[in-house]
Amino acid sequence: MNIVVLGGGPGGYVAAIRAAQLGAEVTLVEKQALGGTCLNVGCIPTKVLLHTSELYSALKRESAEIGLDIPQLAVDWKRLQKRKDKIIRINTGGIGALLKKNKVAQITGTGRFTGIHELEVTLGDGSIRTLHFDRAIVATGSSPSRVPIPGTELSAVITSDEALSLPEVPESLCIIGGGVIGCEFASIYSSLGCKVTIIEMLPELIAAMDRDIVRCLRKEFAAAGVDVHTETRVELIEQTAKGLAVTAVSPSGSLVIEAEKVLLSIGRRPAASGLGLELLGVTMKKGAIEVDRNMQTSVPSIYAIGDCVGGIMLAHVASAEGIVAAEHMMGEPSPVDFRTVPSCVYTRPELSSVGLTEEGAREQGLEVKTGSFSLQANGKSMIMGETGGLVKYVTDARTGEILGLHIAGPRATDMIAQGALALRLEATVDEIETTIHAHPTVSEALLEAALAVNHRAIHSH
Amino acid sequence: MNIVVLGGGPGGYVAAIRAAQLGAEVTLVEKQALGGTCLNVGCIPTKVLLHTSELYSALKRESAEIGLDIPQLAVDWKRLQKRKDKIIRINTGGIGALLKKNKVAQITGTGRFTGIHELEVTLGDGSIRTLHFDRAIVATGSSPSRVPIPGTELSAVITSDEALSLPEVPESLCIIGGGVIGCEFASIYSSLGCKVTIIEMLPELIAAMDRDIVRCLRKEFAAAGVDVHTETRVELIEQTAKGLAVTAVSPSGSLVIEAEKVLLSIGRRPAASGLGLELLGVTMKKGAIEVDRNMQTSVPSIYAIGDCVGGIMLAHVASAEGIVAAEHMMGEPSPVDFRTVPSCVYTRPELSSVGLTEEGAREQGLEVKTGSFSLQANGKSMIMGETGGLVKYVTDARTGEILGLHIAGPRATDMIAQGALALRLEATVDEIETTIHAHPTVSEALLEAALAVNHRAIHSH
Repeated sequence: MNIVVLGGGPGGYVAAIRAAQLGAEVTLVEKQALGGTCLNVGCIPTKVLLHTSELYSALKRESAEIGLDIPQLAVDWKRLQKRKDKIIRINTGGIGALLKKNKVAQITGTGRFTGIHELEVTLGDGSIRTLHFDRAIVATGSSPSRVPIPGTELSAVITSDEALSLPEVPESLCIIGGGVIGCEFASIYSSLGCKVTIIEMLPELIAAMDRDIVRCLRKEFAAAGVDVHTETRVELIEQTAKGLAVTAVSPSGSLVIEAEKVLLSIGRRPAASGLGLELLGVTMKKGAIEVDRNMQTSVPSIYAIGDCVGGIMLAHVASAEGIVAAEHMMGEPSPVDFRTVPSCVYTRPELSSVGLTEEGAREQGLEVKTGSFSLQANGKSMIMGETGGLVKYVTDARTGEILGLHIAGPRATDMIAQGALALRLEATVDEIETTIHAHPTVSEALLEAALAVNHRAIHSH
Repeated sequence: MNIVVLGGGPGGYVAAIRAAQLGAEVTLVEKQALGGTCLNVGCIPTKVLLHTSELYSALKRESAEIGLDIPQLAVDWKRLQKRKDKIIRINTGGIGALLKKNKVAQITGTGRFTGIHELEVTLGDGSIRTLHFDRAIVATGSSPSRVPIPGTELSAVITSDEALSLPEVPESLCIIGGGVIGCEFASIYSSLGCKVTIIEMLPELIAAMDRDIVRCLRKEFAAAGVDVHTETRVELIEQTAKGLAVTAVSPSGSLVIEAEKVLLSIGRRPAASGLGLELLGVTMKKGAIEVDRNMQTSVPSIYAIGDCVGGIMLAHVASAEGIVAAEHMMGEPSPVDFRTVPSCVYTRPELSSVGLTEEGAREQGLEVKTGSFSLQANGKSMIMGETGGLVKYVTDARTGEILGLHIAGPRATDMIAQGALALRLEATVDEIETTIHAHPTVSEALLEAALAVNHRAIHSH
């Protein structure tokens, strides 16, 4: 089996490796750097900036309290940028080495389908190379959305791509769009002393997450001086003598936010056009490539995975879809369970979520019982100086089955893995209750919240 | 039902609350502070010291690398001690409030059984109060062991109790016993600039943990300048002009370690004598109170839980046993699953473990398959600057069932909860593989290590 993968992000390179492991002859075509958005201008670089900025603000706030003597403290932004670039470089190199180890051929170039078994690749020097394949996987990702708001063409209006590499920390930043990306940048820049304002059209930040969890972040933002305007729609961005002025309409009237920079973080759109797919008869849907549950498009020799198929645009979803596509074309069963997709926000507190929110479950007509536990009563969180969190289960009231787990607090992004496993195994709340959780850990709160579902938490005040 | 609980540690107070929740009239007798060893001289205060000392050494090592400018950095030991005392105080108060909320009566005094339904309590003013009970729970804990080595009576030879409250950081410390407690203190004091030497009789530190995991800690200790002598037996401790001299015999001959202080951390023994139990006919075994699986002693009206019954001396085991005892005496079934007991070491890297080690499984005659993944290939660990870790599964080669999970690395002590749940639900390695793990997290390594069991890890170099 001869397979071509178009796009070397977390969807494409994982699919390439799995297909190669299963015996395929695989070629991966990538026009820029390996690792895609995630590694180059997404998950990884934001986490590098967050790691330092969150530590900086924690030290500023708490070093005296925890017995650290730090008379002077500053962030060396240039050095931090260098670290970000270095980590990207190491990881890009790592992916290259993994591909090589798995005998995946790599081509740097821009691909375009010219037949249902043919991809034309334009190389860096302008020359063209034609690849023939039995099966292809399209993994071309996404790019930041732009909206038709007057003024978005101004040079100080940026997307997440540029927000990662600003030459210096701006004095003020207005973020349009309070989803995961907007909130992470709000966290980075407000920690570094920038005055941040978030404008969100919907009634709450990070709309997909359980509201009780998001409330923990709102409290931290309020304490950190981040202004948040929800149910607010931006009408206009204008250049002023001092910077930019953003005019918006909120339920309580019109407002103008002045800021040095404006970050547009209103979502991402699939990068699915210009690939020649429509000409082959591949069905598209709202700008995304349509696929079935095996990630196969309407043209059987062509599969598509990751952001370019729309849906939940997350690196780990793309990787899982890559595994599904590779295994399906190699004739292997692929039982990846897509109910177990976790979502994470790397702010302080960290937020994470898997399965149904309370509102989502009720909207489905399910009879739910919830159980929550505040980290104010968790010893380890107290020691870590991060008690503004919460753990919340959403369970089926009749069977006790866990439908969702939602966490705000230290280590939330790692602890959510337990919730994903619970969903995978259709665990009930009783099974969590009878599992011993180590003391003193943050994860004890996962036991207490489970106990709280049936009103028998031990440490609940 | 009238219940008396003797001892207010994590076993006793949890048992008291659960019994009260189930409708019992409960009195808790504690001679010192609520929270027992764990809260007052164990888990909690060590974690407070570790939180600051680990952060201090991480900042010293890495602040420039991660873009933090910290020209001067020191630990304010007095302030750290104050924080430790404050956190203990808050938590002690918290337990008192929980007991009150659950209508558990509290008596401060020293109890002694004078009948199978009678406890005599000596109060602080010397007066005596006699309590009658239907059922009693003994939860009197443990105390640091002493060994008959000449010189242990010297004043600079201390136990963990004193090591938590030293007036200043010693210049050098020789730790006798390289178990969990010894290693945590080695981490605290070496981080703070103290020259630490560990002497351990067994072939490896923390003997109960998987050796591959412990090796990660050994490497960090070596890098931090902690000297470790295994298979070494202490023969004598002597006072010298400068401090103490510890004479020991190792496989390669005799050695003398000089140190300002010597910490004896060779284990703990049950605090089960002097309670009047033997006179009532309660069966003892090697200094511990013997109990059945319902935590009932040979005298049916008397139960015992936690360190005083020997076995695994961990706070969360004591709490779980407390729940079992309370539920059994109240006629409720208690399905706590004791295969799921996690063990944690809060060093850097953190270590954690649940279920069987590879050696342990092989000793039981099981055919095992293991899968490991190094955190060097984990993006989030790289960002956190902690790549010296490892995740390792031990599985049943025939069924794929997970027998044990072992982790060294950041957040290991919280991620082990997923392993405990996997054991609880008798999960197979396939079920882990088909669960989506969030990117970028440390917990992705739990997926990769599972994939490695069947040689299909994606990110393995």
